[in-house]
Amino acid sequence: MHQDRINRVIAKMREENVPQILISDPVAIFYLLDRWIHPGERLLALYIHIDGTIKLAINELFPQDGEVGAELIWYNDIEDGVAKLAKEIKDDAIIGVDKEWPAKFLLRLQEIYPDRKYVNASLIVDRVRMVKDEEEKELMRQSSKICDQVMEELIPWVVKGLSENELNAKTKEIFAKHGVTKMSFDPITAYGRGAADPHHETDDSMGKRGNCVVLDIGGFHKNYASDMTRTVFIGEVSDRHREIYEIVKEANLRGIAAAKPGNRMCDVDLACRNYIEEKGFGEYFTHRTGHSIGLEDHEFGDVSSVNEDIIVPGQCFSVEPGIYIQNEEIGVRIEDLVIITNDGCEVLNSVTKDLIIVPEEA
Amino acid sequence: MHQDRINRVIAKMREENVPQILISDPVAIFYLLDRWIHPGERLLALYIHIDGTIKLAINELFPQDGEVGAELIWYNDIEDGVAKLAKEIKDDAIIGVDKEWPAKFLLRLQEIYPDRKYVNASLIVDRVRMVKDEEEKELMRQSSKICDQVMEELIPWVVKGLSENELNAKTKEIFAKHGVTKMSFDPITAYGRGAADPHHETDDSMGKRGNCVVLDIGGFHKNYASDMTRTVFIGEVSDRHREIYEIVKEANLRGIAAAKPGNRMCDVDLACRNYIEEKGFGEYFTHRTGHSIGLEDHEFGDVSSVNEDIIVPGQCFSVEPGIYIQNEEIGVRIEDLVIITNDGCEVLNSVTKDLIIVPEEA
Repeated sequence: MHQDRINRVIAKMREENVPQILISDPVAIFYLLDRWIHPGERLLALYIHIDGTIKLAINELFPQDGEVGAELIWYNDIEDGVAKLAKEIKDDAIIGVDKEWPAKFLLRLQEIYPDRKYVNASLIVDRVRMVKDEEEKELMRQSSKICDQVMEELIPWVVKGLSENELNAKTKEIFAKHGVTKMSFDPITAYGRGAADPHHETDDSMGKRGNCVVLDIGGFHKNYASDMTRTVFIGEVSDRHREIYEIVKEANLRGIAAAKPGNRMCDVDLACRNYIEEKGFGEYFTHRTGHSIGLEDHEFGDVSSVNEDIIVPGQCFSVEPGIYIQNEEIGVRIEDLVIITNDGCEVLNSVTKDLIIVPEEA
Repeated sequence: MHQDRINRVIAKMREENVPQILISDPVAIFYLLDRWIHPGERLLALYIHIDGTIKLAINELFPQDGEVGAELIWYNDIEDGVAKLAKEIKDDAIIGVDKEWPAKFLLRLQEIYPDRKYVNASLIVDRVRMVKDEEEKELMRQSSKICDQVMEELIPWVVKGLSENELNAKTKEIFAKHGVTKMSFDPITAYGRGAADPHHETDDSMGKRGNCVVLDIGGFHKNYASDMTRTVFIGEVSDRHREIYEIVKEANLRGIAAAKPGNRMCDVDLACRNYIEEKGFGEYFTHRTGHSIGLEDHEFGDVSSVNEDIIVPGQCFSVEPGIYIQNEEIGVRIEDLVIITNDGCEVLNSVTKDLIIVPEEA
């Protein structure tokens, strides 16, 4: 277990006046207990009280070795797990629950304790997870370093006459060679028209001379996700496309420059967005600038124009501005991950952002 | 939409005295509206009232073409979708909700209407889905027919020196050749020791002379799942293993003979279980006899010793007794799907259950 992380959760519970919470998300439970338990449809709930009580309601089908760091409340398939859990819940009026807790459990608990106040308490854990500790930062660095290596090895394959689907498979194959078998998301390996279409699904299209190629890839290394994007061109690049590329690159750099403590999350978004708008492409930057990342590819904490949360050291998020113009068959996105330091940020990806033209034929 | 299925749901609601329900499971919504909507983390709720009102709360990100069969309640990411849905809910005291409905939605609805009674109403739809209509029966037949073909083509590969992992990949490849790309579950392709271990994960083990080989496979055809198991032997079979095989085969046949209207689900389980016990292997039959199946591989309605529900025509479930003895490296399971008819059942799988010994070398 990670006592320090649990202490931070309890501190946040005090701040929010939630005396006790039930956490059911297996990722959050891994974050706190350092063990994966995948209960499927069955009840799994980590109970934390601000007095330091920690208990875990768990089905007998999932035996646990060693010290779990929580008192275990065992139940089996012919017992009422929620009733057993309820007996352990203290008298406080408020019970915080996970935002994804299935109604079948919540309704049962409400039946047992109809007079409590139930609140969605997920943000308590989400906000703690948003600020990475040293161990997590190191794993994020390692994960992104592998992603960099995969990108370096992947780019030469663009020229070898592979379809989008084949390039997608090749991406997974290279990740696997580096020991990464679970992708953060299905890789995006899109040529020209597909790259320009945000709803494009990878297909059998082949790249042709002058095409842009969006490569948005990432995988899990020791449970931590990587996520990066580079855009390259095949054979040649038109002046128009080069202009667009350089604008996205400059937007990416401005976003990264704005990623520092004291700024708001929206300042990072606006640093990218205002520059792209200034250059006349505002309507073609159709998504938020980024998202927090860690044990999941998308975690709480958007880099969007409406998120006014102040950035603090330890946060880890993506900076990924883009420009997509469907009738010109051009889509460019450049994405890096950053970790916020005391006075700025550390960029986790090091693959060049200079414009790359891959040869038309290998 | 399927008005007949909605009518059956409304009839069941009347029976259960639940005047209105909110259905959020995308599979149940597909079952009723004949369209897939995958909202991810966003609110999706089909509202059905016994007066025939049908509305669907849906995010603007999921535009719908054509006639949906429900009045659409559109909301977007900056609106409170639950509040918009709540305005459409009638005054009745009871609101039935899906068992998996996330707490973030249920808590918000309870905040808006604190004085209603919220009940888990999933069984209403589950029990309707348990009885297949003619269209579904035909799709289950087609799906199982493909599964039979895949099994016939798969068995000869057992002899070709493939590891469990390779045999697993081969299974998917053969399904793909038949147009089936989504598996019902990850295929089980286990040799000897692995076949005997219910917790075994497919690995790089190779089969050797005398091994049993459990092949438990299934895939989705036009949204309907197949699921069947055959067990074969490599090169030779010991008298002891043959005895075990024949007992499982007879148990499977007895289970199928008990699968008829008027019997209880547990009668099917007990037909298998009692025979295996009588033969002295009771302690090695460690799971329930089967499960209902349709749009999902496992649906409501277990074939277990505690399910006393009376079997009715139209039900579709698996009959899959097994014997597993780890220290003898023997695991045998034989599984077919059946559809209950007016006086018995139709067996959907036709691959032989006679003991097959595949040659040791191709």
